[in-house]
Amino acid sequence: MLALCRRDGSVQLREIEGPRPGRDEALVRVTLAGVCNTDIEIARGYMNFAGVLGHEFVGVVEECSDPSWLGARVAGEINLACQRCALCQRGLSRHCPNRTVLGILGKDGAFAEHLSLPIGNLHRVPESLSDRAACFVEPIAACFEILEQVRVQPSDQVAVLGDGKLGVLASLVLRSAGTQPVLVGKHADKLARARQLGVQSAFAADLPRKTFDVVIEATGSPSGMQLAIELVRPRGTLVLKSTYHGSLSLDAAPLVIDEISLVGSRCGPFPPAIAELAAGSLDPRPLIDGVYALHEAERALEHAAERGVLKVLISTSDAGAD
Amino acid sequence: MLALCRRDGSVQLREIEGPRPGRDEALVRVTLAGVCNTDIEIARGYMNFAGVLGHEFVGVVEECSDPSWLGARVAGEINLACQRCALCQRGLSRHCPNRTVLGILGKDGAFAEHLSLPIGNLHRVPESLSDRAACFVEPIAACFEILEQVRVQPSDQVAVLGDGKLGVLASLVLRSAGTQPVLVGKHADKLARARQLGVQSAFAADLPRKTFDVVIEATGSPSGMQLAIELVRPRGTLVLKSTYHGSLSLDAAPLVIDEISLVGSRCGPFPPAIAELAAGSLDPRPLIDGVYALHEAERALEHAAERGVLKVLISTSDAGAD
Repeated sequence: MLALCRRDGSVQLREIEGPRPGRDEALVRVTLAGVCNTDIEIARGYMNFAGVLGHEFVGVVEECSDPSWLGARVAGEINLACQRCALCQRGLSRHCPNRTVLGILGKDGAFAEHLSLPIGNLHRVPESLSDRAACFVEPIAACFEILEQVRVQPSDQVAVLGDGKLGVLASLVLRSAGTQPVLVGKHADKLARARQLGVQSAFAADLPRKTFDVVIEATGSPSGMQLAIELVRPRGTLVLKSTYHGSLSLDAAPLVIDEISLVGSRCGPFPPAIAELAAGSLDPRPLIDGVYALHEAERALEHAAERGVLKVLISTSDAGAD
Repeated sequence: MLALCRRDGSVQLREIEGPRPGRDEALVRVTLAGVCNTDIEIARGYMNFAGVLGHEFVGVVEECSDPSWLGARVAGEINLACQRCALCQRGLSRHCPNRTVLGILGKDGAFAEHLSLPIGNLHRVPESLSDRAACFVEPIAACFEILEQVRVQPSDQVAVLGDGKLGVLASLVLRSAGTQPVLVGKHADKLARARQLGVQSAFAADLPRKTFDVVIEATGSPSGMQLAIELVRPRGTLVLKSTYHGSLSLDAAPLVIDEISLVGSRCGPFPPAIAELAAGSLDPRPLIDGVYALHEAERALEHAAERGVLKVLISTSDAGAD
């Protein structure tokens, strides 16, 4: 099958053997996949990954030991846990130390014609949800993780730092939870884009310091972290949503003096993401800036890495056009 | 009166005018005061403080507009809040942006014959509590703050990093809450000392990684912070109890990937500290390594700064000997 692979440090389209599903795995024909910043970082060497890239997808089950899944349209959780260790037993299988991660760690991903995943990782996609919207289930689930970890009140003042796709999606999710987040960015054009998507936005310099109850850091840059510490109020909560590569240097004294809680946040629960998308209470499709066929996947990655570009999709079938 | 003052960058005993209590303030004759690491840092320039050092004390009210306080033996909260700002209105007066802080920020402290504090900052010390034990109310309250911020379960695996007085006190408080913390240090002699105080202790190298539910960082050093990140389990809680001066460099990726909560923790509630001390369920007096008269306060600070020394007290009356 055709797949976008990272091998020996470079990313290329290759013709490779398709996945052979394990005993409890399903074979999924990928319909549409989304490019995430993590994919771009992985292409550049993050995680030193070798294999097929991509972890956001919607597809159709073609093979499965449980026949009730055959033909089902699915999204899939990306962490493949051992289900035996202490963390799995505790219900923290997303943190299983023996895990592989779709397209990120030891498991071939979604920028391909097929992928395989454990049946337990699959979630049915309701008919009311288009493929284009369903592609956002994984990143939106990651944003719902914020609501799992932090009790955000509708009256809370919430700031989201970073006007990239993660920041915009987090803002949409926080709005669906009844808050009125302000998206904070550096460029007028990107902030205008966020406003078109119905998200309040502002420059950092225009915001009062030490007043926000909750600040979501989604810039991925050390300066974003420092700004987050400046904006959050004493006893407020700072959610670290983006990964930093290499070491981060920060003035930690305010964390202690102002008793700030800093919460690391990664993958999240699929059911609320699917439910909210299906209910139409959040629609991420206006973020889509391009849809490429699988044989154009290298260009898709380049486009996704351009400044100001939000979501780029990779279609592996004709169904990507809805 | 005699007082240990920081002025023009140096710390000296000086004969200065006594405090003139404001309208809602009481005049307190200091009986006994404790030397905290923060005092040592302040002497070295932290906070660029000018005035009388010291913020841990027990004393007797000599003047007060409310006669019910006259003659009362008291401990005192160190944050003097405006009681008018949004944070004060919200019950977060310890974080009042207009605050002064006893012996730390804009308010003369406790290494003196007298100090003044708002009546609202005073807490009566029960008769059953000796002056030596009462001296620990403030730092023990700061350790009770951990229990206010984090729901620590008796079954939780808890590690306290740092074998100095803060680490030992935090361990004692966590034990009084029903947990069995392990104090982690670098030096065999200091760990043996902790064990004499009834605290389990260990070298960092002997502990399993990524297994502790709660880790308290009380070393004040960047390497302690990195070790804390190594020890805490995914989805665990890391309490930052010591202030870092200057910038802190750390690998923040595990915070996000393992979804760790990092909680800054500073001053705490006096009532549970006084209640536990009065009930005798924790006795900090074995930490005392020296008691100096006020006129020896400079030596007291030097002694407190020596390696392996836990608590040093400064007595301003004959009552310090119990």
